[in-house]
Amino acid sequence: MSPEVFKAKLFEVETGQNSILLNQRDIESFGLHAGVRVEASMGDKNVVAVVDVTRTMVDEGEVGAFTEVTDRLSLSEEDKVKIAPVSHPESIGFIRKMMKGNDLSSGEIHAIVKDIVEGRLTSSEITAFLVTQEIRNLSIQETADLTRSMVETGDTIELDEEPVLDVHSIGGIPGNKYSLLTVPIVASAGLTIPKTSSKAITSPAGTADIMGLLADVSLTLEEISNIVRKVGGVLAWGGAVNLAPADDILVRLERPLGIDPRSQLLASILSKKLSVNTDMILIDIPTGPGAKMETDEDSKNLAHDFISLGHELNVEVETVLTYGGQPLGYAVGPGLEAREALETLQGNGPNSLIEKSTGLAGILLEMGDSAPLGQGTKVAMDILKSGKAYNKMQEIIEAQGGDPDVKMDDLPIGDKKEVISASKEGYVKRIYNSRIRDIARTAGAPRDPGAGIKLFYKEGREIDKGDPILEIYAEHENKLEDAIKMAKKNKPFRIEGMMLERVSKRTRTDLS
Amino acid sequence: MSPEVFKAKLFEVETGQNSILLNQRDIESFGLHAGVRVEASMGDKNVVAVVDVTRTMVDEGEVGAFTEVTDRLSLSEEDKVKIAPVSHPESIGFIRKMMKGNDLSSGEIHAIVKDIVEGRLTSSEITAFLVTQEIRNLSIQETADLTRSMVETGDTIELDEEPVLDVHSIGGIPGNKYSLLTVPIVASAGLTIPKTSSKAITSPAGTADIMGLLADVSLTLEEISNIVRKVGGVLAWGGAVNLAPADDILVRLERPLGIDPRSQLLASILSKKLSVNTDMILIDIPTGPGAKMETDEDSKNLAHDFISLGHELNVEVETVLTYGGQPLGYAVGPGLEAREALETLQGNGPNSLIEKSTGLAGILLEMGDSAPLGQGTKVAMDILKSGKAYNKMQEIIEAQGGDPDVKMDDLPIGDKKEVISASKEGYVKRIYNSRIRDIARTAGAPRDPGAGIKLFYKEGREIDKGDPILEIYAEHENKLEDAIKMAKKNKPFRIEGMMLERVSKRTRTDLS
Repeated sequence: MSPEVFKAKLFEVETGQNSILLNQRDIESFGLHAGVRVEASMGDKNVVAVVDVTRTMVDEGEVGAFTEVTDRLSLSEEDKVKIAPVSHPESIGFIRKMMKGNDLSSGEIHAIVKDIVEGRLTSSEITAFLVTQEIRNLSIQETADLTRSMVETGDTIELDEEPVLDVHSIGGIPGNKYSLLTVPIVASAGLTIPKTSSKAITSPAGTADIMGLLADVSLTLEEISNIVRKVGGVLAWGGAVNLAPADDILVRLERPLGIDPRSQLLASILSKKLSVNTDMILIDIPTGPGAKMETDEDSKNLAHDFISLGHELNVEVETVLTYGGQPLGYAVGPGLEAREALETLQGNGPNSLIEKSTGLAGILLEMGDSAPLGQGTKVAMDILKSGKAYNKMQEIIEAQGGDPDVKMDDLPIGDKKEVISASKEGYVKRIYNSRIRDIARTAGAPRDPGAGIKLFYKEGREIDKGDPILEIYAEHENKLEDAIKMAKKNKPFRIEGMMLERVSKRTRTDLS
Repeated sequence: MSPEVFKAKLFEVETGQNSILLNQRDIESFGLHAGVRVEASMGDKNVVAVVDVTRTMVDEGEVGAFTEVTDRLSLSEEDKVKIAPVSHPESIGFIRKMMKGNDLSSGEIHAIVKDIVEGRLTSSEITAFLVTQEIRNLSIQETADLTRSMVETGDTIELDEEPVLDVHSIGGIPGNKYSLLTVPIVASAGLTIPKTSSKAITSPAGTADIMGLLADVSLTLEEISNIVRKVGGVLAWGGAVNLAPADDILVRLERPLGIDPRSQLLASILSKKLSVNTDMILIDIPTGPGAKMETDEDSKNLAHDFISLGHELNVEVETVLTYGGQPLGYAVGPGLEAREALETLQGNGPNSLIEKSTGLAGILLEMGDSAPLGQGTKVAMDILKSGKAYNKMQEIIEAQGGDPDVKMDDLPIGDKKEVISASKEGYVKRIYNSRIRDIARTAGAPRDPGAGIKLFYKEGREIDKGDPILEIYAEHENKLEDAIKMAKKNKPFRIEGMMLERVSKRTRTDLS
């Protein structure tokens, strides 16, 4: 089959991949079959697409274009589209080589990443790449090649400022709103910190969901660059820019499988940062029961990998283990977290949030030579207490098109609410991250920005039976009810007395 | 989201998977998103489908059904379809457990296979299962569980005859038409051999393509059962019956990746055979350069696995290594191979084909107690020479609805042809299976049944420059030309003199 010209017929259907539709008779006369890959092109735009087959929906000589292909080729009805066969991508052979346990060269890794970004590999083939990484770890050298390839196949910006700093948490814990404080503290000291972050996927609120209530987070690379130049910091949504787009494709395929290969985790984070030419990166590794990393040993191991990879990539990486066994602060959900962050910037916030955000800011200040070694946290705390960080946050909000004088009451909070009380007295022994997350999401977060949870106690506190332990907020009555049911079924707190279990003398005697 | 009822709107589009189309507003109001899995049901039929999204192609309250879903639910326009969310399949956790290197229980393997057959796993998730098998071999115990699960999730028949025998070749070589002789020889001896085989996927002719020119191969399980009872043997197309359907799904995903995990290879073959309650199976392992197994060591290793698996599954398995370094016989392509098989049954065929088909039949006769140990091949040869095998083949052809007195000229042979001659004199050192296959397929085989290749020489023969070495047959002029080009570019024969390379004294002196 040589390239042939087909008349476009548009179908407004999102299929989640690049697909086109051809008539059965055309397919047969080309000696092709359903499911093959072809290259569809118009002018200088082209896309690799998988072929669906019909006898009736398009005629011979017509090509049905679904939304992804229509967009990519900027097609209009009846446009002329060239269809040509594509050869089996060479990168599949490299993935097979990995499966056999062989190391890949830089060129081979680059070819795989390029084919992923250009749509030449199917979801199944990309999954094979991920599963192989999950089973056979890539070396640090290969992970560095992977990271570089992910940067090179996306957009990048070169910021003029130096050094460019950034901070990133591995695997969120509920209420993890620290960057709304850490970024303005660091920027207050004159440093540059262009933080991009994600919207929630499995959590009740991503940093971009929270910041999105205060300002515009869908910024272009040029806007990010201008804002950073002006006010030093930015809190933008990573999804609005095309930094390391391979990562987005890979993450979408990792999630249903519940895998997160170490090499991919490392490359994912560093590629996003290197795309904005970050010089110094602080990685926060929340550690504790219910966090992504449950033990210090696992976290230190990961920290070591980050530092080695930074070394390979010629970027300064520091890591810090923070306590991740319970939510940070007392508020969970976009609106509630935005309020708690603002209140804390204004001088009235919970200790855990103040400690973590000044602790991380302190390390960044030391890395950026804006505080003497060992004095970073103190300098950060002074900046926060002086109100400078709040003023800087107002500048950032304004630069991002928001209202710098936003009031608490402007921020959404669900008017359907219910207090959950302790069913017995004792000490709060555990607050389950996963249950807090599930209840907040069931209540509507992050889609309903006013939905979420307000905690009244944290771990270690003594409480009486009947004391309110948390309040659920929702925007819709039915979601509130579902969340209450869930909170009663899987209690998010474990309360125990000091006397945990009695082992009687009699029992011991009986056993001996 | 509880089950909701939608009005069906049919789209005649084959997407290669179960997909439905919902309106964006419906999707959002359910809190779902594109790419989620839902269960679509009508009456007692149901299917798990992936959701595509549109704003215009279906209205709110409508569900667009593509061909696979329409067929599975037997939908008509405007039928009421229930849509309900499905939970994340538990089997994904079992696949993840495999990735971590843990053994799976029978129940876990069964759950994976069941979810594959019922469409609960996406192509990516099934690929994860295959890649994990490719990297971490399953144990024989696990492979036995896999085989049993593949049998149980498909149709089966219980034949009354005992023993039921079968023969299967691992990885074809071009011209591998032996079963058109072996099956009638074995059935002539009064044994039962219900052979199902495939149509060509990557080869120029599968057994079912060749037999399809002589009789009907699309038989139901009931027809297979009746024919076997009547004449002892059958040569049916496995694709027409629903034996071990998981295998078809898995093979479709293995092919683009170019992987064939050992455990899957073993389970694939034995599951098809156990579905028709075969008692004794002979596995033919063609071995040699260009065959699937290139060395005796690899082949013996595989043979050992087959025997161990047979032991676990309580079925008698024997294996035999045959020479697979060049095509079998002289004919390649459906029509040419049908002719060669018939001529050989009638007493006039090439030695390699006679040797292999009587050799395999001989082992089967010994397994089935129809020949004394060590005498099988002789008995088989007598049956062939006596004309009994030809008569039995005529009975089989008639029972399958074909003409028992089919003449050579009734069989298709392309009228476009070209002889390729030797460009130098010497000995035929190699005939490349892969090049013979590619040329025959380019000439049109198996789609054009008259297309293929007739060889004039086999390995070891001495030839002169200008001697015809093969003839290409095609039904279409353009395909013939493409095949000729290919044959001239990648010569399918290697011809060398006895003196391979001269290492002169002078060279040696110079080097020392």
